[in-house]
Amino acid sequence: MTDSGRPPVTVIGLGDMGRALAGAFLDRGHPTAVWNRTASRADALAARGATVAATPAEAIAASPLTVVCLLDDGAVRKVLEPAAATLRGRTLVNLTNGTPGQARETAAWAAGQGAEYVDGGIMAVPPMIGGPGALVLYSGSPAAFTGHEATLGALGAARHLGTDPGLAALYDVALLSAMYGMFGGFFQAVALTRSEKVPAAEFTPMVAAWLGAMMESLPALAEAVDSGDHSATGSNLRMQAAAYVNLLDAAREQGVGTELMEPMRALLDRAVAAGHGDGDLSSLVDLLRTAPANGPAPRR
Amino acid sequence: MTDSGRPPVTVIGLGDMGRALAGAFLDRGHPTAVWNRTASRADALAARGATVAATPAEAIAASPLTVVCLLDDGAVRKVLEPAAATLRGRTLVNLTNGTPGQARETAAWAAGQGAEYVDGGIMAVPPMIGGPGALVLYSGSPAAFTGHEATLGALGAARHLGTDPGLAALYDVALLSAMYGMFGGFFQAVALTRSEKVPAAEFTPMVAAWLGAMMESLPALAEAVDSGDHSATGSNLRMQAAAYVNLLDAAREQGVGTELMEPMRALLDRAVAAGHGDGDLSSLVDLLRTAPANGPAPRR
Ligand SMILES: NC(=O)c1ccc[n+]([C@@H]2O[C@H](COP(=O)([O-])OP(=O)(O)OC[C@H]3O[C@@H](n4cnc5c(N)ncnc54)[C@H](OP(=O)(O)O)[C@@H]3O)[C@@H](O)[C@H]2O)c1
Ligand SMILES: NC(=O)c1ccc[n+]([C@@H]2O[C@H](COP(=O)([O-])OP(=O)(O)OC[C@H]3O[C@@H](n4cnc5c(N)ncnc54)[C@H](OP(=O)(O)O)[C@@H]3O)[C@@H](O)[C@H]2O)c1
Repeated sequence: MTDSGRPPVTVIGLGDMGRALAGAFLDRGHPTAVWNRTASRADALAARGATVAATPAEAIAASPLTVVCLLDDGAVRKVLEPAAATLRGRTLVNLTNGTPGQARETAAWAAGQGAEYVDGGIMAVPPMIGGPGALVLYSGSPAAFTGHEATLGALGAARHLGTDPGLAALYDVALLSAMYGMFGGFFQAVALTRSEKVPAAEFTPMVAAWLGAMMESLPALAEAVDSGDHSATGSNLRMQAAAYVNLLDAAREQGVGTELMEPMRALLDRAVAAGHGDGDLSSLVDLLRTAPANGPAPRR
Repeated sequence: MTDSGRPPVTVIGLGDMGRALAGAFLDRGHPTAVWNRTASRADALAARGATVAATPAEAIAASPLTVVCLLDDGAVRKVLEPAAATLRGRTLVNLTNGTPGQARETAAWAAGQGAEYVDGGIMAVPPMIGGPGALVLYSGSPAAFTGHEATLGALGAARHLGTDPGLAALYDVALLSAMYGMFGGFFQAVALTRSEKVPAAEFTPMVAAWLGAMMESLPALAEAVDSGDHSATGSNLRMQAAAYVNLLDAAREQGVGTELMEPMRALLDRAVAAGHGDGDLSSLVDLLRTAPANGPAPRR
């Protein structure tokens, strides 16, 4: 503890996101130690009072809690392994994007070093960090999470999903998958209307309103997925498969690629061929399950 | 005109959508003539006062305005061609889903029959028709649209996009492309979380909140597309391409198919390879333009 009364915290990784995290801790008055491979990225934080460590181990030694936010799992291993001994008795919160399997392995590795481990997924872009719209998902050691919940609250709303360290990554990749689906659809829509010289900025409010209206059907789709009752409620799948062909043909007519659109067409056609043509779109979710043989990827 | 003071209207095609359209006209007091290939689908409308015609030509003859809503363009040609002579001097509003090219061809065909033609795209599902959330896009003859705007208002908000009859179809397929992108992403997300037994209904509010938050970035993405300035604002494309690999690996780990996700990965990789790795996601739109050689599909 220092004058501010806030416990010290360490941030490793000062990319766009890591700098936002460290900045949010500084804003709340936490004594903040930082480390980054490219040292110059710490300069602005140092000017705001952050302590710049010379090595990851020195940074970790400065605080009971270390938050790591690097590009990917490979970078996390590369940076943390030489500093492993320093982790003993401390808490590691890993906010690097990764898979559930990676989170579970890093949790096991951290346990082997005598560290408490919490994995996390940041559901926000850097400018949102510390603001009311930021959500950070956590999973892993409940004791470590509870012990540092107040500090982590500096970043945004904190939600602990369970003791399985893979859960935060699972929710994270799921939410990002939904986001990239939406962005991909938006890009296709903009490419189509731009082919007739409609400015994207002019078209976007209509897309946003339409997506907002269609998002209202998500709870009903989710209920159908859970219950397995895929009865159509006004928009049968055979009709949708027929209309979908027009989305592809229209793209070809207008000189826009169809690559983002093809897989959904194949899925709709599979669903109709499987006898779901009279039913609802919700039946597609079950078609996304792969055979066990194609199941879990080999773990490292 | 009849006692209600509303002009008569004809609806051809009584699938889920056509029945909703005819029902909305009846609700407003329009004398409504209907025809459908499978006659029994008119029964409930007849009980509410609709006149059931024996042929498409008989239905068209009953009103100055005929609204057509069939499965696809092929069905429209099949149903209307034998009734072509009856269209002379009347207005045809085609709300069947189709491509801009199909709309332009049907417009030319209708002009050849001496009919006014308006093409349309229904941005609503059947239960929304006639309610405040329904939007119907129109394009083609401005005079015909204006002349029947009050009648068409029974279906929902009516927006005329221009005299090019292909515009409504263009916006329609664009908006549907955005919608299927969002639904595809949602299904992937639900398939992922269900792989750890999270009920879709439990997860969906989090997805909806996240998509709502990420939709707030659409105007900025649109501006970048229009200006061509794809400078990153906190989420560089190289980082996104690295994280995207985790979305695919996580799906494999959890026994979920990656087919809906693969094309966006290829697009991200192409963008990084093309030197846009430091920039923003908005640069992807330009990659969706196909070479002129792959351009317009052969017209019928
Ligand atoms: N930005 C966002 O919108 C956002 C949102 C949610 C989650 N995330 C996640 O947050 C993490 C960081 O993202 P970011 O936006 O900060 O990315 P970034 O700006 O590209 O920064 C990447 C960071 O990783 C470091 N790094 C990469 N490879 C390394 C290696 N081999 N050894 C040591 N350090 C290495 C970089 O160090 P140098 O400075 O030395 O290159 C830098 O600190 C990622 O997992 C990302 O998926 C980002
Ligand atoms: N439902 C929606 O959510 C929705 C939303 C926006 C736009 N739309 C568009 O509205 C149109 C109609 O959709 P819907 O939901 O009403 O579909 P639907 O319930 O499947 O009905 C299809 C209609 O097309 C008729 N039809 C199909 N092939 C025909 C043929 N060869 N000859 C004559 N009639 C034929 C059917 O007649 P039978 O009854 O004899 O089979 C029926 O009236 C489609 O273009 C669709 O894309 C639908």
